[in-house]
Amino acid sequence: MRRIYAIGIGAGDPEHLTVQAIDRLNRVDVFFVLDKGEAKADLVRLRQDILDRFVTRPGYRVVSAQDPDRDRTPADYRVAVADWHQLRTDVYERLIRDELGEDETGAFLVWGDPSLYDSTIALIEAVLARETVEFDYEVVPGVSSVSALAARHRTTMNQIGRAVHFTTGRRLSEGWPADADDVFVLLDAHTTFDRFADQGVWIYWGAYLGTPEEILVSGLLDAGLATRIRELRAEARERNGWIMDTYLLRRPR
Amino acid sequence: MRRIYAIGIGAGDPEHLTVQAIDRLNRVDVFFVLDKGEAKADLVRLRQDILDRFVTRPGYRVVSAQDPDRDRTPADYRVAVADWHQLRTDVYERLIRDELGEDETGAFLVWGDPSLYDSTIALIEAVLARETVEFDYEVVPGVSSVSALAARHRTTMNQIGRAVHFTTGRRLSEGWPADADDVFVLLDAHTTFDRFADQGVWIYWGAYLGTPEEILVSGLLDAGLATRIRELRAEARERNGWIMDTYLLRRPR
Repeated sequence: MRRIYAIGIGAGDPEHLTVQAIDRLNRVDVFFVLDKGEAKADLVRLRQDILDRFVTRPGYRVVSAQDPDRDRTPADYRVAVADWHQLRTDVYERLIRDELGEDETGAFLVWGDPSLYDSTIALIEAVLARETVEFDYEVVPGVSSVSALAARHRTTMNQIGRAVHFTTGRRLSEGWPADADDVFVLLDAHTTFDRFADQGVWIYWGAYLGTPEEILVSGLLDAGLATRIRELRAEARERNGWIMDTYLLRRPR
Repeated sequence: MRRIYAIGIGAGDPEHLTVQAIDRLNRVDVFFVLDKGEAKADLVRLRQDILDRFVTRPGYRVVSAQDPDRDRTPADYRVAVADWHQLRTDVYERLIRDELGEDETGAFLVWGDPSLYDSTIALIEAVLARETVEFDYEVVPGVSSVSALAARHRTTMNQIGRAVHFTTGRRLSEGWPADADDVFVLLDAHTTFDRFADQGVWIYWGAYLGTPEEILVSGLLDAGLATRIRELRAEARERNGWIMDTYLLRRPR
Protein backbone atom coordinates (compact mmCIF):
# COMPACT_ATOMS: atom_id res chain seq x y z
CA MET A 1 0.00 0.00 0.00
CA ARG A 2 1.10 3.54 -0.72
CA ARG A 3 2.23 5.51 2.30
CA ILE A 4 2.27 9.30 2.71
CA TYR A 5 4.00 11.44 5.33
CA ALA A 6 3.11 15.03 6.16
CA ILE A 7 6.35 16.09 7.82
CA GLY A 8 6.73 19.26 9.87
CA ILE A 9 10.18 20.68 9.10
CA GLY A 10 10.19 23.60 11.52
CA ALA A 11 9.91 27.31 11.04
CA GLY A 12 12.93 27.92 8.81
CA ASP A 13 16.00 26.77 10.77
CA PRO A 14 17.08 23.34 9.44
CA GLU A 15 18.15 22.55 13.02
CA HIS A 16 14.43 22.52 13.98
CA LEU A 17 14.09 19.12 12.31
CA THR A 18 13.28 16.37 14.78
CA VAL A 19 14.85 12.92 15.00
CA GLN A 20 11.47 11.54 13.90
CA ALA A 21 11.32 13.85 10.86
CA ILE A 22 14.83 12.81 9.80
CA ASP A 23 13.91 9.14 10.25
CA ARG A 24 10.84 9.58 8.04
CA LEU A 25 12.75 11.61 5.40
CA ASN A 26 14.99 8.58 5.00
CA ARG A 27 12.06 6.26 4.20
CA VAL A 28 10.72 8.41 1.37
CA ASP A 29 10.80 7.43 -2.30
CA VAL A 30 9.18 10.59 -3.67
CA PHE A 31 9.16 14.11 -2.22
CA PHE A 32 6.31 16.23 -3.55
CA VAL A 33 7.16 19.90 -3.91
CA LEU A 34 4.30 22.31 -4.44
CA ASP A 35 5.62 25.33 -6.24
CA LYS A 36 3.91 28.57 -5.32
CA GLY A 37 5.74 30.65 -7.91
CA GLU A 38 9.06 32.38 -8.38
CA ALA A 39 8.73 34.70 -5.40
CA LYS A 40 9.15 31.83 -2.97
CA ALA A 41 12.00 30.11 -4.82
CA ASP A 42 14.06 30.75 -1.67
CA LEU A 43 11.77 28.40 0.25
CA VAL A 44 12.02 25.67 -2.40
CA ARG A 45 15.82 25.98 -2.18
CA LEU A 46 15.75 25.88 1.62
CA ARG A 47 13.71 22.68 1.42
CA GLN A 48 16.25 21.16 -0.98
CA ASP A 49 19.02 22.13 1.45
CA ILE A 50 17.19 20.16 4.14
CA LEU A 51 17.05 17.08 1.91
CA ASP A 52 20.73 17.44 0.97
CA ARG A 53 21.74 17.71 4.61
CA PHE A 54 19.57 15.03 6.22
CA VAL A 55 18.70 12.37 3.63
CA THR A 56 21.40 9.73 3.43
CA ARG A 57 19.29 7.16 1.56
CA PRO A 58 20.15 7.39 -2.14
CA GLY A 59 17.79 7.34 -5.08
CA TYR A 60 14.85 9.40 -3.95
CA ARG A 61 12.87 11.41 -6.49
CA VAL A 62 11.56 14.96 -6.24
CA VAL A 63 8.34 15.70 -8.10
CA SER A 64 7.27 19.31 -8.43
CA ALA A 65 3.80 20.51 -9.21
CA GLN A 66 2.22 23.90 -9.59
CA ASP A 67 0.07 24.78 -6.59
CA PRO A 68 -3.08 26.41 -8.10
CA ASP A 69 -3.34 30.09 -7.31
CA ARG A 70 -6.30 31.46 -5.43
CA ASP A 71 -8.52 34.19 -6.82
CA ARG A 72 -7.50 37.01 -4.47
CA THR A 73 -10.41 39.30 -5.32
CA PRO A 74 -13.37 36.95 -5.77
CA ALA A 75 -17.00 38.02 -6.02
CA ASP A 76 -17.89 35.31 -3.49
CA TYR A 77 -15.12 34.46 -1.01
CA ARG A 78 -16.59 31.12 0.12
CA VAL A 79 -17.16 29.83 -3.40
CA ALA A 80 -13.67 30.90 -4.46
CA VAL A 81 -12.10 29.07 -1.51
CA ALA A 82 -14.15 25.93 -2.19
CA ASP A 83 -13.20 25.96 -5.91
CA TRP A 84 -9.57 26.47 -5.02
CA HIS A 85 -9.70 23.58 -2.56
CA GLN A 86 -11.05 21.30 -5.35
CA LEU A 87 -8.27 22.33 -7.73
CA ARG A 88 -5.65 21.70 -5.08
CA THR A 89 -7.18 18.32 -4.23
CA ASP A 90 -6.89 17.44 -7.93
CA VAL A 91 -3.16 18.16 -7.80
CA TYR A 92 -2.60 16.16 -4.62
CA GLU A 93 -4.65 13.25 -5.97
CA ARG A 94 -2.64 13.18 -9.20
CA LEU A 95 0.67 13.25 -7.33
CA ILE A 96 -0.27 10.41 -4.97
CA ARG A 97 -1.96 8.26 -7.63
CA ASP A 98 0.30 8.83 -10.64
CA GLU A 99 3.73 9.68 -9.26
CA LEU A 100 3.93 7.00 -6.59
CA GLY A 101 4.27 3.25 -7.13
CA GLU A 102 1.92 0.95 -5.24
CA ASP A 103 4.41 0.10 -2.52
CA GLU A 104 6.16 3.43 -2.41
CA THR A 105 6.25 6.19 0.17
CA GLY A 106 5.69 9.85 -0.62
CA ALA A 107 6.08 12.94 1.52
CA PHE A 108 4.88 16.50 1.74
CA LEU A 109 7.27 18.73 3.69
CA VAL A 110 5.46 21.39 5.68
CA TRP A 111 6.99 24.54 7.14
CA GLY A 112 6.40 24.79 10.88
CA ASP A 113 3.90 22.30 12.20
CA PRO A 114 1.41 20.59 9.82
CA SER A 115 -1.48 21.17 12.23
CA LEU A 116 -1.30 24.96 12.37
CA TYR A 117 -2.66 27.06 9.49
CA ASP A 118 -1.53 24.61 6.84
CA SER A 119 -3.77 22.80 4.36
CA THR A 120 -1.75 19.61 3.76
CA ILE A 121 -3.73 17.43 6.20
CA ALA A 122 -7.07 18.68 4.85
CA LEU A 123 -5.96 18.04 1.26
CA ILE A 124 -4.73 14.52 2.05
CA GLU A 125 -8.08 13.81 3.76
CA ALA A 126 -9.92 15.22 0.72
CA VAL A 127 -7.99 12.88 -1.59
CA LEU A 128 -8.80 9.91 0.70
CA ALA A 129 -12.49 10.87 0.66
CA ARG A 130 -12.55 10.61 -3.15
CA GLU A 131 -11.63 6.89 -2.85
CA THR A 132 -9.71 6.96 -6.14
CA VAL A 133 -6.41 5.84 -4.62
CA GLU A 134 -5.68 3.84 -1.48
CA PHE A 135 -2.98 4.93 0.94
CA ASP A 136 -2.17 5.30 4.60
CA TYR A 137 -0.66 8.45 6.04
CA GLU A 138 1.14 9.74 9.11
CA VAL A 139 1.61 13.28 10.44
CA VAL A 140 5.01 14.15 11.92
CA PRO A 141 4.72 17.18 14.22
CA GLY A 142 7.21 20.03 13.91
CA VAL A 143 8.36 23.17 15.70
CA SER A 144 5.69 25.73 14.84
CA SER A 145 6.40 29.32 13.85
CA VAL A 146 4.73 30.46 17.08
CA SER A 147 7.06 28.29 19.21
CA ALA A 148 10.02 29.61 17.23
CA LEU A 149 8.85 33.21 17.67
CA ALA A 150 8.39 32.81 21.42
CA ALA A 151 11.78 31.09 21.81
CA ARG A 152 13.65 33.77 19.84
CA HIS A 153 12.04 36.48 21.97
CA ARG A 154 12.61 34.35 25.11
CA THR A 155 9.04 34.88 26.16
CA THR A 156 6.18 32.55 26.98
CA MET A 157 3.03 32.26 24.88
CA ASN A 158 0.76 32.50 27.91
CA GLN A 159 0.82 34.64 31.01
CA ILE A 160 0.50 32.55 34.20
CA GLY A 161 -2.76 30.60 34.16
CA ARG A 162 -4.13 32.66 31.25
CA ALA A 163 -5.35 31.76 27.76
CA VAL A 164 -3.57 32.05 24.41
CA HIS A 165 -5.34 32.80 21.14
CA PHE A 166 -4.10 32.12 17.58
CA THR A 167 -5.85 34.00 14.84
CA THR A 168 -5.44 35.41 11.36
CA GLY A 169 -4.88 38.98 10.22
CA ARG A 170 -8.33 38.91 8.61
CA ARG A 171 -10.05 38.01 11.88
CA LEU A 172 -7.95 40.39 13.99
CA SER A 173 -9.16 43.24 11.79
CA GLU A 174 -12.60 42.67 13.36
CA GLY A 175 -11.24 43.51 16.83
CA TRP A 176 -9.32 42.05 19.78
CA PRO A 177 -10.47 38.46 20.48
CA ALA A 178 -12.49 38.02 23.65
CA ASP A 179 -11.21 35.97 26.59
CA ALA A 180 -7.51 36.26 25.70
CA ASP A 181 -4.67 38.63 26.62
CA ASP A 182 -2.07 36.94 24.40
CA VAL A 183 -2.89 36.81 20.71
CA PHE A 184 -0.65 35.27 18.04
CA VAL A 185 -1.41 36.54 14.56
CA LEU A 186 -0.60 34.48 11.46
CA LEU A 187 -1.25 35.05 7.75
CA ASP A 188 -1.43 38.81 8.16
CA ALA A 189 -0.59 40.61 4.91
CA HIS A 190 -1.82 43.97 6.14
CA THR A 191 0.05 44.81 9.41
CA THR A 192 -3.24 44.65 11.28
CA PHE A 193 -1.34 45.34 14.55
CA ASP A 194 -1.50 49.01 13.54
CA ARG A 195 -4.98 49.39 14.95
CA PHE A 196 -3.81 48.40 18.46
CA ALA A 197 -1.05 51.03 18.68
CA ASP A 198 -1.06 53.31 21.74
CA GLN A 199 -3.35 50.99 23.72
CA GLY A 200 -0.89 49.55 26.25
CA VAL A 201 -0.30 46.45 24.10
CA TRP A 202 3.15 44.82 23.67
CA ILE A 203 4.26 43.32 20.38
CA TYR A 204 6.77 40.52 19.71
CA TRP A 205 7.28 40.45 15.95
CA GLY A 206 9.47 38.18 13.84
CA ALA A 207 10.09 37.57 10.14
CA TYR A 208 12.07 34.82 8.34
CA LEU A 209 12.35 33.06 11.71
CA GLY A 210 15.33 30.77 12.03
CA THR A 211 16.88 31.84 8.71
CA PRO A 212 19.89 34.12 8.10
CA GLU A 213 17.41 36.91 7.19
CA GLU A 214 15.62 36.71 10.56
CA ILE A 215 14.34 40.03 11.94
CA LEU A 216 13.04 40.40 15.51
CA VAL A 217 11.40 43.47 17.03
CA SER A 218 9.61 43.77 20.36
CA GLY A 219 8.37 46.51 22.65
CA LEU A 220 5.43 48.57 23.80
CA LEU A 221 3.37 49.08 20.64
CA ASP A 222 3.17 52.84 20.25
CA ALA A 223 2.59 54.54 16.91
CA GLY A 224 6.35 54.90 16.38
CA LEU A 225 7.03 51.18 16.84
CA ALA A 226 4.08 50.28 14.60
CA THR A 227 5.54 52.49 11.87
CA ARG A 228 9.01 51.05 12.36
CA ILE A 229 7.79 47.45 11.98
CA ARG A 230 5.63 48.39 8.97
CA GLU A 231 8.66 49.96 7.27
CA LEU A 232 11.03 47.11 8.17
CA ARG A 233 8.50 44.66 6.81
CA ALA A 234 8.01 46.53 3.52
CA GLU A 235 11.77 46.90 2.99
CA ALA A 236 12.47 43.24 3.74
CA ARG A 237 9.67 42.11 1.47
CA GLU A 238 11.01 44.30 -1.32
CA ARG A 239 14.58 43.06 -0.77
CA ASN A 240 13.73 39.33 -0.59
CA GLY A 241 10.73 39.25 -2.92
CA TRP A 242 8.61 37.55 -0.23
CA ILE A 243 8.04 37.61 3.50
CA MET A 244 6.80 35.21 6.17
CA ASP A 245 6.18 36.91 9.49
CA THR A 246 4.15 36.39 12.63
CA TYR A 247 3.65 38.24 15.88
CA LEU A 248 2.33 38.11 19.41
CA LEU A 249 0.20 40.93 20.79
CA ARG A 250 0.14 40.96 24.60
CA ARG A 251 -2.01 42.87 27.05
CA PRO A 252 -0.03 42.59 30.31
CA ARG A 253 -2.07 41.56 33.35
CA MET B 1 30.07 33.98 31.78
CA ARG B 2 27.62 31.30 32.84
CA ARG B 3 25.24 30.12 30.16
CA ILE B 4 21.82 28.52 30.60
CA TYR B 5 19.66 26.66 28.09
CA ALA B 6 15.93 26.04 28.45
CA ILE B 7 15.56 23.13 26.06
CA GLY B 8 12.22 21.87 24.77
CA ILE B 9 12.47 18.07 24.59
CA GLY B 10 9.08 17.32 23.04
CA ALA B 11 5.91 15.85 24.40
CA GLY B 12 7.22 12.43 25.52
CA ASP B 13 8.61 10.72 22.43
CA PRO B 14 12.44 10.96 22.49
CA GLU B 15 12.25 11.19 18.67
CA HIS B 16 10.66 14.65 19.08
CA LEU B 17 14.08 16.06 19.96
CA THR B 18 15.33 18.52 17.38
CA VAL B 19 18.81 18.72 15.86
CA GLN B 20 19.21 22.03 17.72
CA ALA B 21 18.21 20.47 21.05
CA ILE B 22 20.70 17.61 20.58
CA ASP B 23 23.42 20.12 19.67
CA ARG B 24 22.74 22.12 22.86
CA LEU B 25 22.54 18.98 25.04
CA ASN B 26 26.10 18.26 23.95
CA ARG B 27 27.37 21.64 25.18
CA VAL B 28 26.01 21.25 28.70
CA ASP B 29 28.17 20.78 31.81
CA VAL B 30 25.32 20.51 34.30
CA PHE B 31 21.74 19.31 33.78
CA PHE B 32 19.37 20.56 36.45
CA VAL B 33 16.58 18.14 37.31
CA LEU B 34 13.67 19.45 39.31
CA ASP B 35 12.12 16.56 41.17
CA LYS B 36 8.37 16.86 41.63
CA GLY B 37 8.10 13.78 43.83
CA GLU B 38 7.90 10.02 43.48
CA ALA B 39 4.73 9.98 41.39
CA LYS B 40 6.55 11.39 38.38
CA ALA B 41 9.70 9.24 38.73
CA ASP B 42 8.77 7.87 35.28
CA LEU B 43 9.35 11.33 33.82
CA VAL B 44 12.74 11.71 35.53
CA ARG B 45 13.71 8.31 34.09
CA LEU B 46 12.47 9.28 30.63
CA ARG B 47 14.62 12.40 30.81
CA GLN B 48 17.65 10.32 31.78
CA ASP B 49 16.94 8.01 28.81
CA ILE B 50 17.08 11.08 26.56
CA LEU B 51 20.50 12.05 27.96
CA ASP B 52 21.78 8.48 27.62
CA ARG B 53 20.64 8.30 24.02
CA PHE B 54 21.65 11.71 22.71
CA VAL B 55 24.56 13.07 24.77
CA THR B 56 27.87 11.81 23.41
CA ARG B 57 30.02 14.37 25.27
CA PRO B 58 31.39 12.69 28.40
CA GLY B 59 31.66 14.10 31.91
CA TYR B 60 28.42 16.02 32.34
CA ARG B 61 26.88 16.30 35.80
CA VAL B 62 23.23 15.94 36.80
CA VAL B 63 22.12 18.01 39.78
CA SER B 64 18.71 17.29 41.26
CA ALA B 65 16.72 19.62 43.45
CA GLN B 66 13.36 19.40 45.09
CA ASP B 67 10.79 21.57 43.31
CA PRO B 68 8.81 23.26 46.11
CA ASP B 69 5.25 22.03 46.32
CA ARG B 70 2.37 24.43 45.94
CA ASP B 71 -0.30 24.85 48.59
CA ARG B 72 -3.22 23.25 46.72
CA THR B 73 -5.94 24.58 49.04
CA PRO B 74 -4.77 28.10 49.94
CA ALA B 75 -6.89 30.73 51.66
CA ASP B 76 -5.72 33.26 49.06
CA TYR B 77 -4.88 31.78 45.66
CA ARG B 78 -2.88 34.78 44.38
CA VAL B 79 -0.72 35.06 47.52
CA ALA B 80 -0.06 31.31 47.50
CA VAL B 81 1.06 31.41 43.84
CA ALA B 82 3.32 34.42 44.47
CA ASP B 83 4.92 32.75 47.54
CA TRP B 84 5.43 29.56 45.58
CA HIS B 85 7.05 31.51 42.72
CA GLN B 86 9.52 33.05 45.24
CA LEU B 87 10.41 29.65 46.68
CA ARG B 88 10.96 28.22 43.21
CA THR B 89 13.07 31.24 42.21
CA ASP B 90 15.22 30.55 45.30
CA VAL B 91 15.85 27.01 44.03
CA TYR B 92 16.69 28.10 40.47
CA GLU B 93 18.97 30.87 41.79
CA ARG B 94 20.86 28.43 44.02
CA LEU B 95 21.30 25.94 41.17
CA ILE B 96 22.63 28.52 38.72
CA ARG B 97 24.84 30.34 41.26
CA ASP B 98 26.18 27.44 43.34
CA GLU B 99 26.14 24.40 41.08
CA LEU B 100 27.63 26.00 37.98
CA GLY B 101 31.21 27.22 37.53
CA GLU B 102 31.72 30.70 36.12
CA ASP B 103 32.39 29.52 32.58
CA GLU B 104 30.08 26.56 32.63
CA THR B 105 26.80 25.83 30.85
CA GLY B 106 23.69 24.54 32.58
CA ALA B 107 20.39 23.34 31.19
CA PHE B 108 16.80 22.86 32.20
CA LEU B 109 15.01 20.24 30.10
CA VAL B 110 11.38 21.11 29.50
CA TRP B 111 8.67 18.72 28.32
CA GLY B 112 6.96 19.95 25.18
CA ASP B 113 7.79 23.53 24.30
CA PRO B 114 9.24 25.91 26.93
CA SER B 115 6.90 28.72 25.86
CA LEU B 116 3.61 26.93 26.54
CA TYR B 117 2.29 26.55 30.10
CA ASP B 118 5.74 26.04 31.56
CA SER B 119 7.40 28.22 34.20
CA THR B 120 11.09 27.74 33.34
CA ILE B 121 11.45 30.95 31.31
CA ALA B 122 9.65 33.02 33.98
CA LEU B 123 11.84 31.53 36.72
CA ILE B 124 15.06 32.18 34.79
CA GLU B 125 13.93 35.79 34.24
CA ALA B 126 13.10 36.08 37.95
CA VAL B 127 16.63 34.92 38.87
CA LEU B 128 18.13 37.44 36.42
CA ALA B 129 16.02 40.23 37.94
CA ARG B 130 17.54 39.53 41.38
CA GLU B 131 21.00 40.43 39.97
CA THR B 132 22.75 37.98 42.31
CA VAL B 133 24.36 35.96 39.53
CA GLU B 134 25.25 36.90 35.96
CA PHE B 135 24.41 34.63 33.06
CA ASP B 136 23.11 34.55 29.53
CA TYR B 137 20.40 32.19 28.37
CA GLU B 138 18.82 30.74 25.26
CA VAL B 139 15.46 29.08 24.68
CA VAL B 140 15.38 26.06 22.35
CA PRO B 141 11.84 25.50 21.02
CA GLY B 142 10.33 22.01 21.09
CA VAL B 143 7.38 20.04 19.75
CA SER B 144 4.51 21.06 22.04
CA SER B 145 1.98 18.64 23.50
CA VAL B 146 -0.71 20.32 21.38
CA SER B 147 1.25 19.71 18.15
CA ALA B 148 1.82 16.12 19.23
CA LEU B 149 -1.89 15.67 20.04
CA ALA B 150 -2.99 17.09 16.68
CA ALA B 151 -0.44 14.96 14.79
CA ARG B 152 -1.44 11.72 16.53
CA HIS B 153 -5.11 12.43 15.74
CA ARG B 154 -4.14 13.56 12.22
CA THR B 155 -6.22 16.67 12.61
CA THR B 156 -5.48 20.36 12.33
CA MET B 157 -5.58 22.76 15.26
CA ASN B 158 -7.63 25.30 13.34
CA GLN B 159 -10.56 25.02 10.96
CA ILE B 160 -9.94 26.91 7.71
CA GLY B 161 -9.35 30.60 8.44
CA ARG B 162 -10.63 30.24 12.03
CA ALA B 163 -9.06 30.92 15.43
CA VAL B 164 -7.54 28.49 17.94
CA HIS B 165 -7.68 28.98 21.68
CA PHE B 166 -5.42 27.41 24.34
CA THR B 167 -6.72 27.50 27.87
CA THR B 168 -6.61 25.74 31.22
CA GLY B 169 -9.13 23.45 32.88
CA ARG B 170 -9.71 26.12 35.51
CA ARG B 171 -10.63 28.75 32.91
CA LEU B 172 -12.71 26.36 30.79
CA SER B 173 -14.86 25.66 33.85
CA GLU B 174 -16.11 29.27 33.48
CA GLY B 175 -17.56 28.49 30.04
CA TRP B 176 -16.65 28.11 26.37
CA PRO B 177 -14.16 30.84 25.32
CA ALA B 178 -15.58 33.49 23.02
CA ASP B 179 -14.36 33.93 19.45
CA ALA B 180 -13.02 30.38 19.05
CA ASP B 181 -14.41 27.09 17.78
CA ASP B 182 -11.27 25.05 18.51
CA VAL B 183 -10.16 24.99 22.12
CA PHE B 184 -7.11 23.12 23.43
CA VAL B 185 -7.29 22.45 27.15
CA LEU B 186 -4.16 21.97 29.24
CA LEU B 187 -3.58 21.46 32.96
CA ASP B 188 -7.05 20.05 33.50
CA ALA B 189 -7.20 17.80 36.57
CA HIS B 190 -11.00 17.69 36.61
CA THR B 191 -12.19 16.42 33.19
CA THR B 192 -13.86 19.77 32.59
CA PHE B 193 -14.91 18.56 29.11
CA ASP B 194 -17.82 16.86 30.91
CA ARG B 195 -19.83 20.04 30.90
CA PHE B 196 -19.80 20.25 27.09
CA ALA B 197 -21.20 16.75 26.51
CA ASP B 198 -24.25 16.43 24.23
CA GLN B 199 -23.73 19.89 22.71
CA GLY B 200 -22.47 18.91 19.23
CA VAL B 201 -18.83 19.27 20.29
CA TRP B 202 -16.07 16.90 19.13
CA ILE B 203 -13.23 15.86 21.41
CA TYR B 204 -9.69 14.73 20.52
CA TRP B 205 -8.15 13.48 23.76
CA GLY B 206 -4.67 12.09 24.43
CA ALA B 207 -2.65 10.98 27.44
CA TYR B 208 1.05 10.07 27.79
CA LEU B 209 1.52 11.34 24.22
CA GLY B 210 4.45 9.81 22.39
CA THR B 211 5.20 7.26 25.12
CA PRO B 212 4.46 3.51 25.13
CA GLU B 213 1.50 4.23 27.46
CA GLU B 214 -0.12 6.64 24.95
CA ILE B 215 -3.94 6.60 24.89
CA LEU B 216 -5.95 8.38 22.16
CA VAL B 217 -9.71 8.81 22.03
CA SER B 218 -11.75 10.98 19.68
CA GLY B 219 -15.36 11.38 18.65
CA LEU B 220 -18.57 13.30 19.08
CA LEU B 221 -18.63 14.15 22.78
CA ASP B 222 -21.85 12.62 24.02
CA ALA B 223 -22.39 11.63 27.65
CA GLY B 224 -21.21 8.09 26.92
CA LEU B 225 -17.90 9.21 25.44
CA ALA B 226 -17.34 11.67 28.29
CA THR B 227 -17.84 8.84 30.78
CA ARG B 228 -15.53 6.54 28.82
CA ILE B 229 -12.69 9.09 28.78
CA ARG B 230 -13.23 9.89 32.46
CA GLU B 231 -12.95 6.19 33.33
CA LEU B 232 -9.95 5.55 31.05
CA ARG B 233 -8.23 8.55 32.61
CA ALA B 234 -8.89 7.42 36.19
CA GLU B 235 -7.72 3.86 35.47
CA ALA B 236 -4.54 5.02 33.72
CA ARG B 237 -3.75 7.45 36.50
CA GLU B 238 -4.22 4.69 39.08
CA ARG B 239 -2.08 2.25 37.08
CA ASN B 240 0.80 4.67 36.35
CA GLY B 241 0.63 6.80 39.49
CA TRP B 242 0.44 9.99 37.38
CA ILE B 243 -1.10 11.29 34.19
CA MET B 244 -0.38 14.01 31.67
CA ASP B 245 -3.21 14.56 29.23
CA THR B 246 -4.55 17.24 26.97
CA TYR B 247 -7.45 17.59 24.59
CA LEU B 248 -9.02 19.59 21.80
CA LEU B 249 -12.71 20.52 21.90
CA ARG B 250 -14.07 21.41 18.46
CA ARG B 251 -17.33 23.00 17.39
CA PRO B 252 -17.53 22.13 13.68
CA ARG B 253 -18.37 25.05 11.40
